[in-house]
Amino acid sequence: MDKLYLFKIGGKVIDNHAALQSFLKRFAALPHPKILVHGGGVIADQMAMKLNISTEMHKGRRITSEAMRDLVTMVYGGQINKSLVASLQSLGCDALGCTGADAGLIRSKRRSPEPVDFGFVGDVTEVRKDMLIKLLKLGLTPVFAPLSFDQEILNTNADGIASALAQALAADYDVHMLYCFEQAGVLLDVKDPSSLIEVLSLRYYEDLLKDGVITEGMLPKLEECFRARKRGVQHITLAEASACLSHAEGQSFRGTRIEL
Amino acid sequence: MDKLYLFKIGGKVIDNHAALQSFLKRFAALPHPKILVHGGGVIADQMAMKLNISTEMHKGRRITSEAMRDLVTMVYGGQINKSLVASLQSLGCDALGCTGADAGLIRSKRRSPEPVDFGFVGDVTEVRKDMLIKLLKLGLTPVFAPLSFDQEILNTNADGIASALAQALAADYDVHMLYCFEQAGVLLDVKDPSSLIEVLSLRYYEDLLKDGVITEGMLPKLEECFRARKRGVQHITLAEASACLSHAEGQSFRGTRIEL
Repeated sequence: MDKLYLFKIGGKVIDNHAALQSFLKRFAALPHPKILVHGGGVIADQMAMKLNISTEMHKGRRITSEAMRDLVTMVYGGQINKSLVASLQSLGCDALGCTGADAGLIRSKRRSPEPVDFGFVGDVTEVRKDMLIKLLKLGLTPVFAPLSFDQEILNTNADGIASALAQALAADYDVHMLYCFEQAGVLLDVKDPSSLIEVLSLRYYEDLLKDGVITEGMLPKLEECFRARKRGVQHITLAEASACLSHAEGQSFRGTRIEL
Repeated sequence: MDKLYLFKIGGKVIDNHAALQSFLKRFAALPHPKILVHGGGVIADQMAMKLNISTEMHKGRRITSEAMRDLVTMVYGGQINKSLVASLQSLGCDALGCTGADAGLIRSKRRSPEPVDFGFVGDVTEVRKDMLIKLLKLGLTPVFAPLSFDQEILNTNADGIASALAQALAADYDVHMLYCFEQAGVLLDVKDPSSLIEVLSLRYYEDLLKDGVITEGMLPKLEECFRARKRGVQHITLAEASACLSHAEGQSFRGTRIEL
């Protein structure tokens, strides 16, 4: 099977111009079929402030109002996505910017309003694998904004999009899913970079969960990783963006590998 | 040769919710390969006002500052384009939203700063025909924002994009280029809808130019039409959006046909 590299980058990479350019240069040069999934970053919050769109929250989690959904469609699907596509094209990488609505690639279901209505937020239900593979076979590099489609555009977690894409492609490609991360990987002690866990097995993870070592922010990300691994995604790594790239380039790297 | 319908819609259709939904419903149902090119509309101006980005003008023509280019990337490439794509997908039309940067489909050259620097504006130089045809053959309906690519995204006239796409495809498809228009077509007297010119030949056009009948706003649009016609585009029509659709549906319609 052909290798396929699926990178997910978040705000920490997107918001730092130098880090982003360095990332894109190395990403563009990777010879294998590849996909980039990006998150949002502070740009959407800044734009919301400028436009006086307030961010509603519930217990630390955002609620996506209709105005906020329209804003993220504009910022994630327009500003960030097209700027990434233009940069990649100028670096010789044949990028194609997509939301889940484009070519019906990522269908979702709007999250139930019970117990909490998170608004215009979707959870991925289906990836249109046949079309995605056809686009990859044309030599294109899909670049996904964190937006899915359920008769309308819905705000969607970028980790979830990356994981769903990886799962959909695992029967056809040897998929490497790389979550680019602000830390070296999963740390036993978040304040100590040397406490990196190089291989996180499901059993070890469950022990850490019991011991309360996994912080709340890491929990959904790792749940997503184990779900993807169980559903056949061959290689899953969490590491700093430059380490993820080193891995894809076949060099040694520091990071956390997810195993069952 | 297969027929291909290429519609260009401007602000008058985009800004009117009911007119737009009616247009999209009929457009989605057209059985032939098709492409939609959209302009901007008032949404970009409204957003520019909200964000305190001033619109610079030169003799009635807009100058695209860098801030304005970023804004139109967001509004045209995100908000308008993705909302059209989502509507078409929900109507069963397999739309794919694109700027000229996506898959390198529309290359341009930034307009010379002499005699007037119009800023981040590009004129189309090349359509990547082979890739565009591959996307059409996948059954996709490309939806183009008025943005092209010259190492970065450039603001680009939607009529020019439509015309360049039509020209690029004319050797492979029997192309119908339809400029949806706020009037019934080209009128001898703009105040009199019954003065519609049903067939505008090049010779008749040149006579009208001499007589000063062609208004300044129509001039670039008609120049673009005759350029496309001379370069092989088989069928070119200017008409109201609903008449353009009737034409594509094989019904009778009122409009102006461009002939050499």
